Amino acid sequence: MSRVDYKAVVPTFCNKTVERPNKASSGTLSGHAAGEPFEKLVYRSLKDRYPDNIYKQFEFLNELYSRHPKLTKIDARKSLFNSPTVLFLLSRGDKATKEWNPTNLFEEKQDDTADALYNKDNYFDIIDVKTRNIGKKAMAPNIISAVKLAKMCSLMIDNEDYENIDIHYVEIDWLEDGEKLKCIESHYADLFKASPDSLYINWAAATQIQFHVSDLEQGWQGSKSDWAHQYIKTFVKSAKERCKTMLSRYVCPYLKYLTEQERKEIFGEDSSNISISVSIEGMVGDDEMTEDTLSLLTHH
Amino acid sequence: MSRVDYKAVVPTFCNKTVERPNKASSGTLSGHAAGEPFEKLVYRSLKDRYPDNIYKQFEFLNELYSRHPKLTKIDARKSLFNSPTVLFLLSRGDKATKEWNPTNLFEEKQDDTADALYNKDNYFDIIDVKTRNIGKKAMAPNIISAVKLAKMCSLMIDNEDYENIDIHYVEIDWLEDGEKLKCIESHYADLFKASPDSLYINWAAATQIQFHVSDLEQGWQGSKSDWAHQYIKTFVKSAKERCKTMLSRYVCPYLKYLTEQERKEIFGEDSSNISISVSIEGMVGDDEMTEDTLSLLTHH
Repeated sequence: MSRVDYKAVVPTFCNKTVERPNKASSGTLSGHAAGEPFEKLVYRSLKDRYPDNIYKQFEFLNELYSRHPKLTKIDARKSLFNSPTVLFLLSRGDKATKEWNPTNLFEEKQDDTADALYNKDNYFDIIDVKTRNIGKKAMAPNIISAVKLAKMCSLMIDNEDYENIDIHYVEIDWLEDGEKLKCIESHYADLFKASPDSLYINWAAATQIQFHVSDLEQGWQGSKSDWAHQYIKTFVKSAKERCKTMLSRYVCPYLKYLTEQERKEIFGEDSSNISISVSIEGMVGDDEMTEDTLSLLTHH
Repeated sequence: MSRVDYKAVVPTFCNKTVERPNKASSGTLSGHAAGEPFEKLVYRSLKDRYPDNIYKQFEFLNELYSRHPKLTKIDARKSLFNSPTVLFLLSRGDKATKEWNPTNLFEEKQDDTADALYNKDNYFDIIDVKTRNIGKKAMAPNIISAVKLAKMCSLMIDNEDYENIDIHYVEIDWLEDGEKLKCIESHYADLFKASPDSLYINWAAATQIQFHVSDLEQGWQGSKSDWAHQYIKTFVKSAKERCKTMLSRYVCPYLKYLTEQERKEIFGEDSSNISISVSIEGMVGDDEMTEDTLSLLTHH
């Protein structure tokens, strides 16, 4: 259950205007540049409503580490997170965490998971703002790495850590309005209310999940534990399908240009059958799998 | 052999300046916006030197179709290309080609293959300009789709069509210089002089080949036919390796979260072995392969 009252907050963005980040005369607005003032608007509104609980991701990390100045080792800093899932989603890399000190604070990073973060005690709501020029037809934007989400689900399951994390998306639909940009519609969605099967993974676009927030199906009735298991199933199935597609599109049509010798070199001795194969004996239940367990088999 | 004298033209870009596309005060220049004035500079220089032979890709298509106003059917328009390879690389999609008429000309498109095109008789040199702010460390840029290149190679081989096409890249390295941007170094490279094995395919980044032009190895000694065969081999090998990596990173570590029933559902009855397999009997030498020839096998 989210502690942020999206139902009350999100409609207030409608009809709000922000300054154009460039002159109307200087041509097209890039999507990223246009989005920034609306991201700031959403952040300020949330901060006004929940002044003690809303952070930028980097602010939260700076405050957390600043409160414990004696913890300077990386593992000690990591131990400040009660939840391994939250640690995984919010913390910076090992090098940056090691180099952090009160005179070397974190700054905003474009690939941070959250645009805004609601925190109370051990509960975190990751809030990501997507802005959209509805004067143009645009593809669904990158939402989050499907790989990151799979890892998050595995951590949730391993640690029975389902209550500490929510992830919400806010969509601001805007149009140009003279020297301003105007919010025409606003939407929000709860990632854990979307059926995992309905999420589209674009393997060729940095394995990103892509959707328009306003189109996100919100019919999932199961628990967050159910969601995590179902997402992993969806992810594994999609990875397998992508492999099949790659073999079918990128390998098969080109085999005829290779000599038998070259085919053997790439795919092994029996060149009548091309196979990529993994033995999972002893794998299920293991914590870690190595590249060595992956073997390329040929079949006789 | 290129007909464009890159060795003479490219060094002339050094120390040239262009106007900043935005005010220095308005913050960071996006890579794309900054590149445009230099792309125009390169185009104008080439056009000055070869006024009858340098085109924008869309200009060339507009001229070609305008010269044959009676050919309105799509196949007739396609027949204007002597080379199927050139047709594949330069023409627009079927819908756009059908809808073309003298009052509905093509305009510039960001995903056109060429920034500039040298044409004389049946010979085409595709020229792509890459601009680079050398004040920043940046990843190697997207050069061309590895899939498009594989298709191009297959067309070259099928049609023994090696003499009509060259592909060259020009790199402009620039720095901010007050209200101007200044070219500090300029480079060029011939795609068919780079060993195909040395090309990096980023499967997760829209299957793009990525390199800095100034780093491109230029030691390939073989013919263009050798190059096409070698590229296809590299491409097939890389696709197979990517599949293995995907199984190892995205499937194996998550199998333990699936029930045996779920594993069977996704991978078939024998869940001790996960295999993605293609029978290539009868495939080698065939022109077309269907999805049906791809089977998911389990092994006993």
